[in-house]
Amino acid sequence: MLEELKQKVLSANLKLVEYNLVTFTWGNVSGIDRDKGLMVIKPSGVKYEELTIDDLVVLDLKGNIIEGKLNPSTDTPTHLYLYNKYPDLGGITHTHSVYATSWAQAGLDIPPLGTTHADNFYGPIPCTPHLEMNEIKTNYEYETGVIIAKTFGTRNLDPQKMPAILCNNHGPFTFGNSPLASVEMAKVLEIVAQMAYQAYGLNQNTNKISQELLDKHYYRKHGETAYYGQPRKES
Amino acid sequence: MLEELKQKVLSANLKLVEYNLVTFTWGNVSGIDRDKGLMVIKPSGVKYEELTIDDLVVLDLKGNIIEGKLNPSTDTPTHLYLYNKYPDLGGITHTHSVYATSWAQAGLDIPPLGTTHADNFYGPIPCTPHLEMNEIKTNYEYETGVIIAKTFGTRNLDPQKMPAILCNNHGPFTFGNSPLASVEMAKVLEIVAQMAYQAYGLNQNTNKISQELLDKHYYRKHGETAYYGQPRKES
Amino acid sequence: MLEELKQKVLSANLKLVEYNLVTFTWGNVSGIDRDKGLMVIKPSGVKYEELTIDDLVVLDLKGNIIEGKLNPSTDTPTHLYLYNKYPDLGGITHTHSVYATSWAQAGLDIPPLGTTHADNFYGPIPCTPHLEMNEIKTNYEYETGVIIAKTFGTRNLDPQKMPAILCNNHGPFTFGNSPLASVEMAKVLEIVAQMAYQAYGLNQNTNKISQELLDKHYYRKHGETAYYGQPRKES
Amino acid sequence: MLEELKQKVLSANLKLVEYNLVTFTWGNVSGIDRDKGLMVIKPSGVKYEELTIDDLVVLDLKGNIIEGKLNPSTDTPTHLYLYNKYPDLGGITHTHSVYATSWAQAGLDIPPLGTTHADNFYGPIPCTPHLEMNEIKTNYEYETGVIIAKTFGTRNLDPQKMPAILCNNHGPFTFGNSPLASVEMAKVLEIVAQMAYQAYGLNQNTNKISQELLDKHYYRKHGETAYYGQPRKES
Repeated sequence: MLEELKQKVLSANLKLVEYNLVTFTWGNVSGIDRDKGLMVIKPSGVKYEELTIDDLVVLDLKGNIIEGKLNPSTDTPTHLYLYNKYPDLGGITHTHSVYATSWAQAGLDIPPLGTTHADNFYGPIPCTPHLEMNEIKTNYEYETGVIIAKTFGTRNLDPQKMPAILCNNHGPFTFGNSPLASVEMAKVLEIVAQMAYQAYGLNQNTNKISQELLDKHYYRKHGETAYYGQPRKES
Repeated sequence: MLEELKQKVLSANLKLVEYNLVTFTWGNVSGIDRDKGLMVIKPSGVKYEELTIDDLVVLDLKGNIIEGKLNPSTDTPTHLYLYNKYPDLGGITHTHSVYATSWAQAGLDIPPLGTTHADNFYGPIPCTPHLEMNEIKTNYEYETGVIIAKTFGTRNLDPQKMPAILCNNHGPFTFGNSPLASVEMAKVLEIVAQMAYQAYGLNQNTNKISQELLDKHYYRKHGETAYYGQPRKES
Repeated sequence: MLEELKQKVLSANLKLVEYNLVTFTWGNVSGIDRDKGLMVIKPSGVKYEELTIDDLVVLDLKGNIIEGKLNPSTDTPTHLYLYNKYPDLGGITHTHSVYATSWAQAGLDIPPLGTTHADNFYGPIPCTPHLEMNEIKTNYEYETGVIIAKTFGTRNLDPQKMPAILCNNHGPFTFGNSPLASVEMAKVLEIVAQMAYQAYGLNQNTNKISQELLDKHYYRKHGETAYYGQPRKES
Repeated sequence: MLEELKQKVLSANLKLVEYNLVTFTWGNVSGIDRDKGLMVIKPSGVKYEELTIDDLVVLDLKGNIIEGKLNPSTDTPTHLYLYNKYPDLGGITHTHSVYATSWAQAGLDIPPLGTTHADNFYGPIPCTPHLEMNEIKTNYEYETGVIIAKTFGTRNLDPQKMPAILCNNHGPFTFGNSPLASVEMAKVLEIVAQMAYQAYGLNQNTNKISQELLDKHYYRKHGETAYYGQPRKES
């Protein structure tokens, strides 16, 4: 069942190790089959080097386990909420990568300081507000999804426009149209977070990138006017 | 004698290298057989790449060498004091890993700034007070064990509740119910120390994690209410 | 066509990975055949591990594609402008290496704080001013070349005298008399940028290297008075 | 001639790469045969991966080349001055390792903040004053040796008591009773420099290690009272 998607989810989870984004079991990637309405996610607390395709857990979008003998990631309700909320979302990655998590622990948006940021993120990468006490005590992982969506909503964003967000005092979630795309974005975020950390160390009053340069770099890689990459466009 | 424990202690010492926690010989792991009342520890100053199972030193809990031709780690009296003090303790690791040691050199507790911390440590990771002059001159390594236990006592902690501590101007000790568990905690501590260092670099006034979020993350991994990891619990 | 140059350009692009200067496809190296008036450059958005010699793109100095099926790097107009401007220039490298980019994002020259800098760069490594809005909107990559040359001109520099420059809010370009020389300079720049970042972290008021020490180190490696390296000069 | 010493010097130079202390050719190790009064040193500007035993250069203590076809390291006069000055010195290493060099660029001694420092260095690691203009212009590398010895003299130190020093705006030299011992000390210095950099980032007012703890750690590894390492001492 869902062998192709499961292979993609397995492969994307293993990229977490290759990209040096995880320590021990601190991360997970999921993917979705929109036609069947099924999500595939890493099981909870299983080491990446021991992870096999049969360990992955398949759930429907109400959270019922359809296949798999193991507990799904504890973050499963966050993933489910976001897949339900955003019909175009195809993959979600959660890590505790050290630079992105440092920004989350500092409780700050990552400001757009350069073109590396602008190539990938159109504006500041949001850091969510704190969850309320009752939201933490009741359905914490579900409420994590809710506050991500609320934060996007307040800022007129969504995972298509902004493929990364920081949960305050916690860590990053990244998004893509596939499991692989979401884990690649987790790597991009980590590098962007490191650069911004270091740039602020050098100059706390540095100027953010101008709107024009942000537009230029973002739109040379995204949308109809994009001209980065292949195949060559006929002029 | 104690072949199984010695194998575990050897294997845990080699993890120090795999986890990038040591330079040269600056670290040691021990384990204990509670039934026999014997501790196994790395010999002093031996390189990890040359370390064999026969190099390990077996001592009773009074510090008498029972087996082994080499000097045990100079930190042996610290380990012995702690095993005597805490009957549930199963493994101890000492390193000079760079981020944890930086906090020890700064003389500061590591504050709980995020869920990576809360998943593993229930509150600030303590930094001990300075030893007194006479404690350093006489039985220094023993007194190091004493001040660790005193610091835990003052804060109503023990190695079960708080599996890491920083010795002021020195470095970390970490604890577990096995040698491997203690060395894994040394890796966790190092990552948590790096994240906290970086988060403070970004925002010295950042909020500590809320009590609710600390509770949530700690208790989803520890104790009777834990629901992280395997096997799946029947609902 | 240009097989030897293409091999050099391919090899230099692969050095970006070996020297740990790039993430994903974020960098490019070009070379030039001055006799034929042709430039060879990496195609846009192709992964280094999949890059073959046949993927490289050959252009004349007006920007016409002479050979190659793929789009050249989007930064091609920057490279072309600089090859046209500086007749002695033999290789250009562009990266988003993390420390050099952090200085670019901070909008600061890298000051000459030590002999590692002075061995390679005769004075501060310039950071360009911001581009104007219309320069960004129209012919952005061409204007990037223009502002590099303007910045060099204002400071009485050129790529021979100063083989690196930082584009404000963007990242570094480095220069050499060959593709390999330019990518080696990208590595040198990254290390120099890390050292300067850390030195400022320790002492914001540290003295720049004295003019005499700058002269000594630069000229023991460059020009007629150089005495570093091989072959041995007869005394 | 001197095959055994040359093998040791070659091996120690290759450790620079293994210990991640050098970029390109930025470092050198030498050794000495005191009986014959001959020094062996790395040639100038030769890559470590291409370095063979026949490339090494043998000089007498007046600086005459006795064997070898290549130019010796440009830092040769510094090494010679120090071997002449300190009859017990057996090996010298010079690097531009990034953390130690950052302290040199900051123009600061590395203060003793912890036991990692105290295990190896009895007090602050000195940073030399700046060289005078005429010292730089005339016999720069010789004068570098002079100012190292002057700095040691002013502080009542020598390479036995303090096996590392930072040349202001330049980088570190480390010392040992063999080439290998000096390069191991270069690695120790780099880690100590990183820890002190990070500890100051956390707490600029942190206390230096107490005299008692400094004594304890230094003398448990050095001198007649040492009890760290092997072989086991009879009690």
